Amino acid sequence: MWDRLWIDINLATDATGTGQPGGDDFGTIPDGAIAVKDGVIAWVGSRADLPGTPESLAAEVLTCGGQWMTAGLVDPHTHLVFGGDRSGEFAERLQGVSYQEIARRGGGILSTVRATREASEEDLLQSTLKRARTLVENGVTTVEIKSGYGLRLEDELKQLRVARAVGRHLPLRVHTTFLGAHALPPEFAGRQADYVTHLCNDMLPAVAREGLADSVDAFCETIAFTPAEVEQIFTVARGLNLPLRLHADQMSDLGGSALAARWGALSADHVEYATEAGARAMAEAGTVAMLLPGAFYFVREEKQPPVALFRKHGVAMGLATDCNPGTSPILTPTGVMNMACTLFRLTPGEALAGHTHIAARALGLADTVGRLRVGMAADMALWDIAGPHELSYWIGGVRPTGRVFAGQPDCQPARQPD
Amino acid sequence: MWDRLWIDINLATDATGTGQPGGDDFGTIPDGAIAVKDGVIAWVGSRADLPGTPESLAAEVLTCGGQWMTAGLVDPHTHLVFGGDRSGEFAERLQGVSYQEIARRGGGILSTVRATREASEEDLLQSTLKRARTLVENGVTTVEIKSGYGLRLEDELKQLRVARAVGRHLPLRVHTTFLGAHALPPEFAGRQADYVTHLCNDMLPAVAREGLADSVDAFCETIAFTPAEVEQIFTVARGLNLPLRLHADQMSDLGGSALAARWGALSADHVEYATEAGARAMAEAGTVAMLLPGAFYFVREEKQPPVALFRKHGVAMGLATDCNPGTSPILTPTGVMNMACTLFRLTPGEALAGHTHIAARALGLADTVGRLRVGMAADMALWDIAGPHELSYWIGGVRPTGRVFAGQPDCQPARQPD
Ligand SMILES: [Zn+2]
Ligand SMILES: [Zn+2]
Repeated sequence: MWDRLWIDINLATDATGTGQPGGDDFGTIPDGAIAVKDGVIAWVGSRADLPGTPESLAAEVLTCGGQWMTAGLVDPHTHLVFGGDRSGEFAERLQGVSYQEIARRGGGILSTVRATREASEEDLLQSTLKRARTLVENGVTTVEIKSGYGLRLEDELKQLRVARAVGRHLPLRVHTTFLGAHALPPEFAGRQADYVTHLCNDMLPAVAREGLADSVDAFCETIAFTPAEVEQIFTVARGLNLPLRLHADQMSDLGGSALAARWGALSADHVEYATEAGARAMAEAGTVAMLLPGAFYFVREEKQPPVALFRKHGVAMGLATDCNPGTSPILTPTGVMNMACTLFRLTPGEALAGHTHIAARALGLADTVGRLRVGMAADMALWDIAGPHELSYWIGGVRPTGRVFAGQPDCQPARQPD
Repeated sequence: MWDRLWIDINLATDATGTGQPGGDDFGTIPDGAIAVKDGVIAWVGSRADLPGTPESLAAEVLTCGGQWMTAGLVDPHTHLVFGGDRSGEFAERLQGVSYQEIARRGGGILSTVRATREASEEDLLQSTLKRARTLVENGVTTVEIKSGYGLRLEDELKQLRVARAVGRHLPLRVHTTFLGAHALPPEFAGRQADYVTHLCNDMLPAVAREGLADSVDAFCETIAFTPAEVEQIFTVARGLNLPLRLHADQMSDLGGSALAARWGALSADHVEYATEAGARAMAEAGTVAMLLPGAFYFVREEKQPPVALFRKHGVAMGLATDCNPGTSPILTPTGVMNMACTLFRLTPGEALAGHTHIAARALGLADTVGRLRVGMAADMALWDIAGPHELSYWIGGVRPTGRVFAGQPDCQPARQPD
């Protein structure tokens, strides 16, 4: 006997990316049925193929009025834990205050570092939960959360503990990432090599010892860490058996995509400046190209990620909010999907794949979440839409009418009023 | 005795547009209080100035934990009533199907016309209510709704009746606009002059007789109606005492902004190609420049509206979703505000003004809604934000935690879970 069975529903079981006009990009099962038992998907198929009457098969039967069910959305790149607020800085920039002046007043990323260090763990948790709840309301069931605003051991650990706690307070799977190499902490100004040594010798081993990081990330850029420094960090991380990922090729071509691929990283993120050699290397290594259209839009970048090259070489393209206070304040994955289609010309099938199973793969969860498939976790989202392409259609995104986490329907988001 | 009093609240009473860094763009009253009686704002000020204890002053006292209250959002340009669904067409375009091929298959605006004509009034109402509920959840309290997908009398009347009905089903003020001159109906192909004559002689008088339109709009563009045809329509509309507005200067400079100003139109909408002469004329006439960043973003326009000219000449800039299935599928005014700031470099103060009192002015409701001021309708929105600039900060927008319509708090949107 199944725990729960959904009927009168259309299923998008598996977004498959680029498709032909009129083809099926979504693994569609019209008039389907899906059942869960013990938090796992137990049956998926056409309603007509159900091996009995719904009531004879499941303890609870939910009829959905022809809505669509997809895998729960996966947000595989966020900086969700931060103190302070940068919306005032956003306003000042629009009032004509220069970046230099904002930095002189202590704004920019270092203001977030200061506020994150000053925040108590409890305050940090509360502000993070508020943002995480919005992700939940927008259909997210798995989220990656990075550190990188502490930039000293105790505060990086604090951020990672808060990230872990999110998964205990909300129906969300949380993957944590240590991003000590996000920026140079002010106390190491002029001594970047010393910080990298400290990070490798002291911070990384401590983070690993506490079991607080599921992967390790770094920001490889002219204004951040060099490829050589990244390799120094990756060497230590690999020694600690921690999977890798990389902020790569966002503002310039430092060969970050190829570096990430060479190290077998789960993902290379941003990748606007990735080259054909980088794309080829990523395809061979199975490294996901993580596109972050929120940051592209917000900072008005002009260099597009090389989507055609990624397609040509078969690089899997993931999508994420990159939610962060400075360059990508967004908590709406379907809004990200719309930007990926509108700005980068992804297809709606590619966009849904990017926020489901490709995102899952970038978190090492390809066999766990991201598809509606027997044996996978029953993390799902229910949508009142004409078809799964509509998920990418609405500017600013569309909210699900319901969500299922580990087989359990949650009551938020609210029912339709009237 | 007041009906209701909100305390422990910060008020943004009046967004004032372009400001100086550090200045107050929002008519801020920190630690304020606001009271309503009989659906109207009865008192606004600092809590310290309340003429008694809260309990002695109001039948109901609501404490808001330091949240912010603004005027309810006004969405002054929408095509909310339509049949069918164009998200499939969106997907096809991204899969490489050309506009020509889509048109050949019967797609584009004429597919919406066909679906709108075929839809029953009840079906049209239900699909419109679904979209209108999303506007409500996003903080809208007043909305303009256009016809323009019927393009023959009975179907234009049907659209306008549905628009009126929205205001009876939901806590929303609805302003209706007759847009018979949206596109040439297929049965008049090659006979545009005949359609304009029919519109002037038959449709407009019938619409006026039924009292279904609060204003009249037209699409002035090389691909739509000429300035001369618009003036023909405006002549009849003015004779019927109907206020005017105009889709103007979106894709080319036909002098639409100046035309709208010359006719004393409430607004000229899109206005990417408005000239300095147009801006000067609009300022003198008090015609609002209605910016529609959703359409600009969705169709990837490159020509920016001349914001600097509008500022220089003191043209009031409004904002609207322009919600429509072909070029601006968006139901999130705060997402529009973010696009206005990010893409057009409006300040957050200008953006909030654009979606509150300037939008109200474009609907002839300047004295009724759009500000928190004694005597105005108690239409308000409550936000869990650091300050009113944060309303423009989030990509894809931010949702209010509550809304007040005619003094009445509504229960949606849902409480925060946890
Ligand atoms: Zn990032
Ligand atoms: Zn329009």
